Amino acid sequence: MTPLARRLGAEALGSSLLAATVIGSGIMAERLAQGNGAVALLANTGATVAALATLIALLGPVSGAHFNPAVSFVEALRGRLTWREAGGYTVAQLVGCCSGALLAHAMYAQPLLQASTHARAGIGQWLAEVVATFGLLLVVLGHRRAEDAPWMVAGWIGAAYWFTASTSFANPAITVARALSNTFAGIRPGDVPGFVAAQLAGALLACPAARALFASSPRRP
Amino acid sequence: MTPLARRLGAEALGSSLLAATVIGSGIMAERLAQGNGAVALLANTGATVAALATLIALLGPVSGAHFNPAVSFVEALRGRLTWREAGGYTVAQLVGCCSGALLAHAMYAQPLLQASTHARAGIGQWLAEVVATFGLLLVVLGHRRAEDAPWMVAGWIGAAYWFTASTSFANPAITVARALSNTFAGIRPGDVPGFVAAQLAGALLACPAARALFASSPRRP
Amino acid sequence: MTPLARRLGAEALGSSLLAATVIGSGIMAERLAQGNGAVALLANTGATVAALATLIALLGPVSGAHFNPAVSFVEALRGRLTWREAGGYTVAQLVGCCSGALLAHAMYAQPLLQASTHARAGIGQWLAEVVATFGLLLVVLGHRRAEDAPWMVAGWIGAAYWFTASTSFANPAITVARALSNTFAGIRPGDVPGFVAAQLAGALLACPAARALFASSPRRP
Amino acid sequence: MTPLARRLGAEALGSSLLAATVIGSGIMAERLAQGNGAVALLANTGATVAALATLIALLGPVSGAHFNPAVSFVEALRGRLTWREAGGYTVAQLVGCCSGALLAHAMYAQPLLQASTHARAGIGQWLAEVVATFGLLLVVLGHRRAEDAPWMVAGWIGAAYWFTASTSFANPAITVARALSNTFAGIRPGDVPGFVAAQLAGALLACPAARALFASSPRRP
Repeated sequence: MTPLARRLGAEALGSSLLAATVIGSGIMAERLAQGNGAVALLANTGATVAALATLIALLGPVSGAHFNPAVSFVEALRGRLTWREAGGYTVAQLVGCCSGALLAHAMYAQPLLQASTHARAGIGQWLAEVVATFGLLLVVLGHRRAEDAPWMVAGWIGAAYWFTASTSFANPAITVARALSNTFAGIRPGDVPGFVAAQLAGALLACPAARALFASSPRRP
Repeated sequence: MTPLARRLGAEALGSSLLAATVIGSGIMAERLAQGNGAVALLANTGATVAALATLIALLGPVSGAHFNPAVSFVEALRGRLTWREAGGYTVAQLVGCCSGALLAHAMYAQPLLQASTHARAGIGQWLAEVVATFGLLLVVLGHRRAEDAPWMVAGWIGAAYWFTASTSFANPAITVARALSNTFAGIRPGDVPGFVAAQLAGALLACPAARALFASSPRRP
Repeated sequence: MTPLARRLGAEALGSSLLAATVIGSGIMAERLAQGNGAVALLANTGATVAALATLIALLGPVSGAHFNPAVSFVEALRGRLTWREAGGYTVAQLVGCCSGALLAHAMYAQPLLQASTHARAGIGQWLAEVVATFGLLLVVLGHRRAEDAPWMVAGWIGAAYWFTASTSFANPAITVARALSNTFAGIRPGDVPGFVAAQLAGALLACPAARALFASSPRRP
Repeated sequence: MTPLARRLGAEALGSSLLAATVIGSGIMAERLAQGNGAVALLANTGATVAALATLIALLGPVSGAHFNPAVSFVEALRGRLTWREAGGYTVAQLVGCCSGALLAHAMYAQPLLQASTHARAGIGQWLAEVVATFGLLLVVLGHRRAEDAPWMVAGWIGAAYWFTASTSFANPAITVARALSNTFAGIRPGDVPGFVAAQLAGALLACPAARALFASSPRRP
């Protein structure tokens, strides 16, 4: 078993690079896209999908590559992590994601700490976060081969960036980090709690669905 | 063998998320693309391909991941499903796809039920649906390794979104669901029968082609 | 060993669907892209890559999935095909590709037979075809695992659509078929011989390069 | 063990085709994109990712497919290459990348040797090169299965093209070659030393990080 410190380091590093990708590619996309939001979101999606798949393949064998408190929470619920470990994972993910926001800002010579003014709220947006996180957890709980997890998780998130009305945050730690960036990927700090609640609801809904669909736990350790 | 109820649940859920992806990503793409239809279709294609591959890998081991009455029909024709099972699959797919349309509308705060006014008819369009569904069934009947089905099916559909004149519906249940959405992905209800007939013709044409090309049934159960 | 008739059928069908993809997606892309050639070529590339990978995985086990007289020629040169078989393959590929052009035109309700007016000639373009076909044959001769051929061939062609000045035809049968289409993907009939000569030169250059790089023939039968 | 001459040939050829892809696709993208820089960078990214993955899969078994002096330097540091071999690799990569720039110019009928005027400097850009090369080396040092290296390396570079402020050169030999091209992908010759220093710093930083995260060296030879 990998020592906990190494696992927390992997979660923090992976979360940091993931958040830097989400936010940094949004900045680049907005600068270059001449106001065409679809082109910008295509670029933002492509970068996120590629980084997510690569980081899961790289760090999955070390820590499980959650990068997401909703995932760690469900893994604790079903006994794959102790609650203490899940708490450590969550702290590492939050610290990692926020440091990734700072890293993106530093690369683009922007103020390191910002407060987003991008309003994201309403029943449609919250429903979107429920659906996006529900699907993400279904993939996490239901995939059969560990080597398929990178592309399946990335594939789901890539689709959800486009089909959900919220562009699929699906991750409380990323949501907090995005609140620190007044750029393409941002979310108004006051809108964070609604998103996080919806994400946790989606994650919880996935548990009985996975039990019903996949019966015995099919994931290979 | 997975119990039938679980298989029907997998078909319904997968069909719902697939239809929500097709329709929801079309709404998002149209909103953002500033009238550039190629950019919108690129986004719609990317989301569809990613969701389709992920859902097939996730639910294929449970139900076969047809999400498509034309596929279930052919699987019944060649004895892989009983006709009773194929009927159940078809109902689950129709209910799933239509609920996915409603879900997309709910996320985007649109009227839940709509009637599309998007005219899609004519010999070219019907020929396109024959070709798209023919190729899809050829992939279903001819692929050698179960683990390749997700990317091969998604790859075919992604190509067919662009090279066929109809943007490749290739699925009667998705066609019905699209009729319920007056958005980018919609089809006028009166044009549904022509599309479905062409899809079934394409599926039937693929059967002798697959027999001639692949001789013994090469698919691993 | 698969009977020759079945192999020729696979070559003809695969070539037809490939040419229909190249030409059909070009028509769709040009219609939708509002004059932005980069967006159109992105769509044309994505469709070609997806169809090519899928068709190679599907038909490779039947015929080798050449779809390309330059590939069949080199396979005959190194004794994997008899010259008689290579001749049959070439006829099947030419008939297939030309029928694919007709199919694309039929779907888009265009005149079935057209003569392209798209001038493509000059030293830069011919050098581009040498490079594109050289790289394609290097992948064909040098890849280690048969299951990697679909994505490696498609990956090379996708890159070459963009980095070569000719957008990488790299295939004499596709080149002839494109001459029959006065659309995005077309080539003036008078420019075909220069392209085909460059393609054959590139294919021949790849043979000693592959021998030097890969020593013993590394391809698994 | 592959003889050194063959390995150096593989490094030179792969580096040449990679540089031709990076520079050539930039020229094509800029010509077609009508000034939309995001569309141009999307095309440049797609071509780079596809060529990189294909070339690594093709030439990795011959030479390791570094195509990058920063990678060869780290492989020498950890004893996988002798310093003499690393020197040979570096020369082959530099010659290869520069010849690839000339090849791209020849295909597009441009002056073969150019000096870029594209200014790329500043703390943000240098930090970006540190991050991009750090992540690249982490993937090189940490991936578990040799068959995953092509897509993981390409995935990281594709993401970094968008999320880093420098569009991720991450390779001293490519950086030198880009200085020879006054096109989309270029860099002012005077800005090369800063980029190369940042790249080497990122590569060196990855070594202790990989040791801490992956403990024993996990790469299969």
